[in-house]
Amino acid sequence: MKYLLLVAHGSRRKASNDEVRQLAQHMNTLQHDYDAVGSAFLELAEPLIPQGIQDAIAKGASEVVVLPYFLSAGRHVSKDVPAEVSRVREEYPQVKIRIAPYLGSAAGIAELLLAQANEK
Amino acid sequence: MKYLLLVAHGSRRKASNDEVRQLAQHMNTLQHDYDAVGSAFLELAEPLIPQGIQDAIAKGASEVVVLPYFLSAGRHVSKDVPAEVSRVREEYPQVKIRIAPYLGSAAGIAELLLAQANEK
Repeated sequence: MKYLLLVAHGSRRKASNDEVRQLAQHMNTLQHDYDAVGSAFLELAEPLIPQGIQDAIAKGASEVVVLPYFLSAGRHVSKDVPAEVSRVREEYPQVKIRIAPYLGSAAGIAELLLAQANEK
Repeated sequence: MKYLLLVAHGSRRKASNDEVRQLAQHMNTLQHDYDAVGSAFLELAEPLIPQGIQDAIAKGASEVVVLPYFLSAGRHVSKDVPAEVSRVREEYPQVKIRIAPYLGSAAGIAELLLAQANEK
């Protein structure tokens, strides 16, 4: 089973965390290569990243793709998210866990922004 | 003249700010409805939003679309960016300044994330 985990920073503002959760649910309804899409947070909201990965494994995931919902390649993307993922990787060496490139590096983001500029 | 201003939070990390500037430059090279695309920051980097809008007006912009490069509808998007824009709007009532919906609310973001998950 292949699981996609959308990972955001997490906010003190509940609505921002709910926005991420709803986005993952929406992704789940689209056509994709995964058996399920879920969400997790680096801090300030639950589940935290290790818990999110463990939940996926408990559901039967043999492969987890962690997708950083971040706009810039700062410390969170380069160090903090990988560190959280590493903790789980050591516990479950039989599960393939891969971190995808962060959202801000997506080739299509420029086109998406140009389209968004026309929205009211 | 119609100007698109990509507005990000701004970071203490120069490379993150440069990432935003490069994204705006890249958007400029794509096909779009604007005479130019630039970038500005809410804080921590330059130009700040009022300066970014003033620079666009100095270049001849009669219409400026401010595009918030933010993922969630928090205080920055709901209050801080509009407050900065308002300051300039009062000074230049003849210029049409519109704030587009923030990136995180883009309909296409779910598809972009699913595509990004397959990137190595």
